[in-house]
Amino acid sequence: MYEELRNEIIRICRLSYDRGHVSAAQGNISARTPDDRGIIIKVSGTSFATITADDLLFVDWEGGVFDSDSMAPSTRQPSMELRFHSWLYPLDDEIGAVVHLHSPYSTAISTNCSSGEIPLIASEARTLLHRVPVIPMYPAGSQLLAEAVHDTFVEDGIMVAVICEHGPVAIGRNLQEAYNHVDNLEHNCMVATYSRLTRLVGTASI
Amino acid sequence: MYEELRNEIIRICRLSYDRGHVSAAQGNISARTPDDRGIIIKVSGTSFATITADDLLFVDWEGGVFDSDSMAPSTRQPSMELRFHSWLYPLDDEIGAVVHLHSPYSTAISTNCSSGEIPLIASEARTLLHRVPVIPMYPAGSQLLAEAVHDTFVEDGIMVAVICEHGPVAIGRNLQEAYNHVDNLEHNCMVATYSRLTRLVGTASI
Amino acid sequence: MYEELRNEIIRICRLSYDRGHVSAAQGNISARTPDDRGIIIKVSGTSFATITADDLLFVDWEGGVFDSDSMAPSTRQPSMELRFHSWLYPLDDEIGAVVHLHSPYSTAISTNCSSGEIPLIASEARTLLHRVPVIPMYPAGSQLLAEAVHDTFVEDGIMVAVICEHGPVAIGRNLQEAYNHVDNLEHNCMVATYSRLTRLVGTASI
Amino acid sequence: MYEELRNEIIRICRLSYDRGHVSAAQGNISARTPDDRGIIIKVSGTSFATITADDLLFVDWEGGVFDSDSMAPSTRQPSMELRFHSWLYPLDDEIGAVVHLHSPYSTAISTNCSSGEIPLIASEARTLLHRVPVIPMYPAGSQLLAEAVHDTFVEDGIMVAVICEHGPVAIGRNLQEAYNHVDNLEHNCMVATYSRLTRLVGTASI
Repeated sequence: MYEELRNEIIRICRLSYDRGHVSAAQGNISARTPDDRGIIIKVSGTSFATITADDLLFVDWEGGVFDSDSMAPSTRQPSMELRFHSWLYPLDDEIGAVVHLHSPYSTAISTNCSSGEIPLIASEARTLLHRVPVIPMYPAGSQLLAEAVHDTFVEDGIMVAVICEHGPVAIGRNLQEAYNHVDNLEHNCMVATYSRLTRLVGTASI
Repeated sequence: MYEELRNEIIRICRLSYDRGHVSAAQGNISARTPDDRGIIIKVSGTSFATITADDLLFVDWEGGVFDSDSMAPSTRQPSMELRFHSWLYPLDDEIGAVVHLHSPYSTAISTNCSSGEIPLIASEARTLLHRVPVIPMYPAGSQLLAEAVHDTFVEDGIMVAVICEHGPVAIGRNLQEAYNHVDNLEHNCMVATYSRLTRLVGTASI
Repeated sequence: MYEELRNEIIRICRLSYDRGHVSAAQGNISARTPDDRGIIIKVSGTSFATITADDLLFVDWEGGVFDSDSMAPSTRQPSMELRFHSWLYPLDDEIGAVVHLHSPYSTAISTNCSSGEIPLIASEARTLLHRVPVIPMYPAGSQLLAEAVHDTFVEDGIMVAVICEHGPVAIGRNLQEAYNHVDNLEHNCMVATYSRLTRLVGTASI
Repeated sequence: MYEELRNEIIRICRLSYDRGHVSAAQGNISARTPDDRGIIIKVSGTSFATITADDLLFVDWEGGVFDSDSMAPSTRQPSMELRFHSWLYPLDDEIGAVVHLHSPYSTAISTNCSSGEIPLIASEARTLLHRVPVIPMYPAGSQLLAEAVHDTFVEDGIMVAVICEHGPVAIGRNLQEAYNHVDNLEHNCMVATYSRLTRLVGTASI
């Protein structure tokens, strides 16, 4: 079942990997099923570098785990971040996808944001992302992390936030939109890094 | 109509995205039609990551908007930067294309150019680009921005300029030429960034 | 013989090159044969940019060198780092592959680690890699280097280490797993570099 | 004529572009013909992003210019750096190719090398490249530049050098070998840049 959606998840996984948003050992992506019975999410430990549609599980809203093709109950373990993924969808019926990546410039800047926000310096990030909070660092897979992620997205208009030392989490109406928020943020953080750097070292005169 | 030109726009969009000149949420490119009746430009909000020839509109010199294939009037919204695109073509009959990207090193350096120009340090940029002004930052899509972009290109010999905190705008006889100016500038800005950095930290002795 | 394993080595070589873990003149990768008679490793001097399955030799545990397809004795020279590759497999029957790359951020950080360890700042690296020692720099191909690499991996739980000024060495149950350790480490070192940099130049306020 | 060699030049041009050694407006590559009658070099102004085998000229040792397919005399202009390319081949019969790229990290470091040499910090660069001089900056295409390049390669064992503010020039027995020298050097310069940077900002403790 859900063949189209599963293929779209795989496409966004490969795109995320090819663009350098994750290493081969990182990241997870989920999407709400069109019938709104639950979400599709990957098996724990699967690499974006080699993932196929067979590595995707269906998890219903009660936490039941099924093979996403045959819909038979499965004993395979969903991604360790299932908790924060599944807690975000109830916030808004419009949320169709959650994309969590480890984009390096965004993650690096998150370690130094005493103000609790990523500085938005590039024009398109300011226009499209409004405000990007930094979520405090809790252990990967913990309930504390899931609560902190959930509480961050309760605020209206938050589309992407960054877990400190860990990486961005974005919501979107669909997979491409959630991915685009992360890609836009990472571009902004790359610009911010080199903007600060060229301010430090000076570029006005040669 | 304009099938060849529309395919060329798509090719340059994908190239821009693959080379990292834009994130999946950014950028716009236009081209003058061979019959000089107007320009082809993308629908507002379309991502370079997924754009197809169906996402391109024809806009005539009076601002009429048409489907670029059927040429039927269209209610779809052209790119929010249509204004500065369409104002550049009348400056010179030779201008066949306008490429606006968010190239990160160029954008970063633009935030620190008190002299109002991007420093040209790399040989090929000095040879081919002569002078690259920084355009003051006005809101994306605003008339003020369109006026500032227009006024910058009135000066003879300007082929590319950078909107502060936003990114490069280039003109060219065709799409590849305009793209090449941006690519050359971005290479220069990457060299300038690391040149200043290695000057700061020292490389002469190990 | 060993066609599947040889193809997998070629796949990981190309992946390593495409992801920027090596230049066209660098790196070597080996894998234990399924029959545990020895390892497959590349011919000395072959570039990852152009390597094919014909460039792979079989070396048995006694050091005999054979063509890995025909299994005829070969006079071709195995990689100059054969010594440290072949010394790692006897440490644990579970080691199926050794991946040695020159990942630039990891190599750069290794030159400044007075504490003898790579700082693990990114969440997934801390979770999956535990501890990443820096191995002192000895001449490429030397017995001293092979001994230092061997002695580092004697410690339980070490999956990847970095030879100072030279690059990472990882072990894994298979090629993809060993590669993933290097990819995860390189991502961490990229984050660590830009984390320190943005701390230096400041990002909290614009 | 020379179909195989021309295809190999195109392959190395695309590789150079795809790996970021040049922007779409930069670089030139030449190769000695197998019959040693002269060299193949590209038409002036052709971009590596779009070059095809039709954009290659044959230039004999007396400077005669011919279409490299039909061998008919040609009025097209060879690359402006023809002079330094053609002056390098007579230095040694073993030189089969000259690769000149604008690799950004190498070019950046070249601007700060008061000692006249690129620091070789990465293991494989030290092993394979021995010594990499910095050539003083003269105008692109000038006789002074051609003389400076020539004089640099008179020294035995020099395989690659960097024109200040301009980029690397490498010689090799064939195109892949010359390219590999540039790729190895650029890797070294990337490592050197981040090595200095992490020394400045500190990485030993978190």
